[in-house]
Amino acid sequence: MEHTRYETLANRLAELIRGGTFTAGDRMPSVRQSSREHRVSISTVIEAYRRLEDTGLIEARPRSGYYVKAPSLPAARLPTIATHAKKPVHIGGASLFEALMDTVADPAVIPFAAAAPDDSMIPRAKLASISNAIFRKHGGAALRYTLPPGRRELRVAVSKRLLGAGIKASPDEIITTHGATEALLLALRATTRRGDLVAVETPTYFGILHLLRDLGLRAIEIPVSPREGLLVDAFESALRKHRVAACVVQPDFHNPIGGVMPPAAKERLARLSGQHGFTIIEDDVYGELSHEGVRNSSISLYGGRVIHIGAISKTLAPGLRVGWVVPGPHFAEIKRLKNIQCPWNATLSELMVAEFLEAGGYDRHLRRIRQLYAVQCARMRQAVIEAFPDTCRVNQPQGGFVLWIEMPVGFDAEHFAVKAMEQRISLVPGPVFSASGGLRNCFRLSCGFAFNDRTLDAVRLLGKLAGK
Amino acid sequence: MEHTRYETLANRLAELIRGGTFTAGDRMPSVRQSSREHRVSISTVIEAYRRLEDTGLIEARPRSGYYVKAPSLPAARLPTIATHAKKPVHIGGASLFEALMDTVADPAVIPFAAAAPDDSMIPRAKLASISNAIFRKHGGAALRYTLPPGRRELRVAVSKRLLGAGIKASPDEIITTHGATEALLLALRATTRRGDLVAVETPTYFGILHLLRDLGLRAIEIPVSPREGLLVDAFESALRKHRVAACVVQPDFHNPIGGVMPPAAKERLARLSGQHGFTIIEDDVYGELSHEGVRNSSISLYGGRVIHIGAISKTLAPGLRVGWVVPGPHFAEIKRLKNIQCPWNATLSELMVAEFLEAGGYDRHLRRIRQLYAVQCARMRQAVIEAFPDTCRVNQPQGGFVLWIEMPVGFDAEHFAVKAMEQRISLVPGPVFSASGGLRNCFRLSCGFAFNDRTLDAVRLLGKLAGK
Repeated sequence: MEHTRYETLANRLAELIRGGTFTAGDRMPSVRQSSREHRVSISTVIEAYRRLEDTGLIEARPRSGYYVKAPSLPAARLPTIATHAKKPVHIGGASLFEALMDTVADPAVIPFAAAAPDDSMIPRAKLASISNAIFRKHGGAALRYTLPPGRRELRVAVSKRLLGAGIKASPDEIITTHGATEALLLALRATTRRGDLVAVETPTYFGILHLLRDLGLRAIEIPVSPREGLLVDAFESALRKHRVAACVVQPDFHNPIGGVMPPAAKERLARLSGQHGFTIIEDDVYGELSHEGVRNSSISLYGGRVIHIGAISKTLAPGLRVGWVVPGPHFAEIKRLKNIQCPWNATLSELMVAEFLEAGGYDRHLRRIRQLYAVQCARMRQAVIEAFPDTCRVNQPQGGFVLWIEMPVGFDAEHFAVKAMEQRISLVPGPVFSASGGLRNCFRLSCGFAFNDRTLDAVRLLGKLAGK
Repeated sequence: MEHTRYETLANRLAELIRGGTFTAGDRMPSVRQSSREHRVSISTVIEAYRRLEDTGLIEARPRSGYYVKAPSLPAARLPTIATHAKKPVHIGGASLFEALMDTVADPAVIPFAAAAPDDSMIPRAKLASISNAIFRKHGGAALRYTLPPGRRELRVAVSKRLLGAGIKASPDEIITTHGATEALLLALRATTRRGDLVAVETPTYFGILHLLRDLGLRAIEIPVSPREGLLVDAFESALRKHRVAACVVQPDFHNPIGGVMPPAAKERLARLSGQHGFTIIEDDVYGELSHEGVRNSSISLYGGRVIHIGAISKTLAPGLRVGWVVPGPHFAEIKRLKNIQCPWNATLSELMVAEFLEAGGYDRHLRRIRQLYAVQCARMRQAVIEAFPDTCRVNQPQGGFVLWIEMPVGFDAEHFAVKAMEQRISLVPGPVFSASGGLRNCFRLSCGFAFNDRTLDAVRLLGKLAGK
């Protein structure tokens, strides 16, 4: 009976997955291939794959095929979150941070600290041929000064990409920047004054905290969920007590915790911005790196005063230093500030990115690296779960490529980072991601780099250091 | 008699120069060529050329030949200078500035406002082949993040170049930056606090003034001579009355006035730095652009606390955005600040510049563009002298490529700039170069661009607008 056949196949495949033939993140053989290999009909394979999907062993990804899922932990083993904002703080220093950064480029160190794509994921052949074409087309003009708002070719290309997030910004409403960090700096400077209070997520990308401290701004920490991003309830309570000038948020595939704000939460946040008169600084650097291939809408779609920020550092090539900001009503002020502090952009970089976005197969490239990131995250996550004590909690990112690991209270992540560095493994301890220096029992592992035996050994060594 | 023969030749050549066959900045025919053309001996030509040199019509340049000199004005027609520093000021705004910058990239506008090399002077073919070689050699690594202090390849190459200015800095004592502006920003931030007093030259490069205002610093204006740069006497008097945290100085081929500080003045300035405890921020962006091919010594050679700044924006390619800073005792603080504000450099740019400096024929390239700049300056200067009222004063730059023109008191350079812009000619009015908004009767014309009939027509039109 056909019924039995697909069950038999499903069971056989399940055994192969549990036995490690197919491991977390692997693409399953295509339906056609399985049909040949197992000598069953196409429809039998389809039924078997559906069965495996129902039992949670594999998952379908649109236009890509079936993938082995990472072992799912019970909800109780996702990182915990606070429910309320803390008191405003002046941001503390992070002495360990610079030492960490100094080692990231050392090839002898396993770079779990670096949230960057693997060199092999950068489409260098295509970019090299684009670079040649630009020299041929523009001659010396490819290397002249580019003044704010940046090369029009790039602003046109970015304008088209932004449509994917529901943002309708004309090229004249976009300013290109030297990566997303400059865009964040300009956005903060345009919307705050020294001493102002800025709402930041906890945990959040450390670069945001460094900028806040440098600008003499105070922070109020809003908890972030590993599933749903910024806790709008907690933020709303805090807004009743505090006047906030700006709120820096990573709504999609949050670094480091991986959460994604549901549309309703984005809408509420936009409404709060209008009611309380603060600017939302939307850091969308990971927005195009969904593992499932979805592209969510910008908060600006729901209204509110939003400065949108993007870059190609995580998707194409960090070393080109190309980002952008859609400043909305702050356009003139951000352009003025850029003219002062970092007035001229790298012209060749801007032209290369413009051409890649327009005609370099960016969507195809994105599909490829999203899948790689998904595989690398899944493998790393499985390795962590196996190597670390059962008391550890791990996020399950739906996009991007960083893992957030929470150990029991009392665990000292800074001490752990130092011990790991002695073993030539870098990672970023939790306090670096917290305005108040909290999150001492947490740390971040980047999965941007290809997962291989060396990576696996490093995770196992970390597990031992963590007390397994 | 041989004596008569060289005088006859000298007179004939002098007529050709006065008649316009050879014009200011032109290279004279080689000695061999003149010998052939005029059917006289080599030694006769040499004698004739010496005679022309004595009368000030031509000048010898080492390893390059003889050039027609720009018409020299009596000393009374060089721009005037104040003799004393003024009172400290908060730096005023310059509303015209942004409008000017917006038009610089417009191909319909004659860009006398832009201090940049002509596109044709950028060695694009060589840089394109270097870019290819880098992609071949480094693969994706050519586009990964580069953290401070920057790519070692570049720091090694810069370290070698700095020897030319007498600076012995190891690669580990150099931090690469996103152009010289970032280096200036970092140097100011490392040596001052909000409200501090900084000595600046008047006139000075406007970017320095924008940074000072943005950082909440006050300025004390020290006069600069079109011949000898910063007036150390005036500065020393000011130091008796005021405590200065830093002094920003362009000792060689000053932008916009072209002065060069003699070694004795550099030595005195270095000594004052030690006595009064301020940091010298040495902006050496034009240091390699002597028209004569000389390379002067850095102030740091004479002691004192010096932060040295350089870049390839004026010598190689502005759009690569590559500069550097030798921070001396401020190394750690400047690296810390760079990690916050603009943490990652454009890797491809750094590798391209490193390779060009090491093996791209940089010295040969410099010889070529120095001569071009010298010719362009001389032609533009002659055109200005002919087109403008006799009351105008013009500097005679020994390097770089900007002219500083002083009109009689009462002339309104800002109004003049607006009128010029209506005729699609950009230029920068004097007040943009002054912390106190002075220099209202002066303006700057850049000679970075190839001098041609369109340029000449534009200068003549400016002359008419200026009342000739």
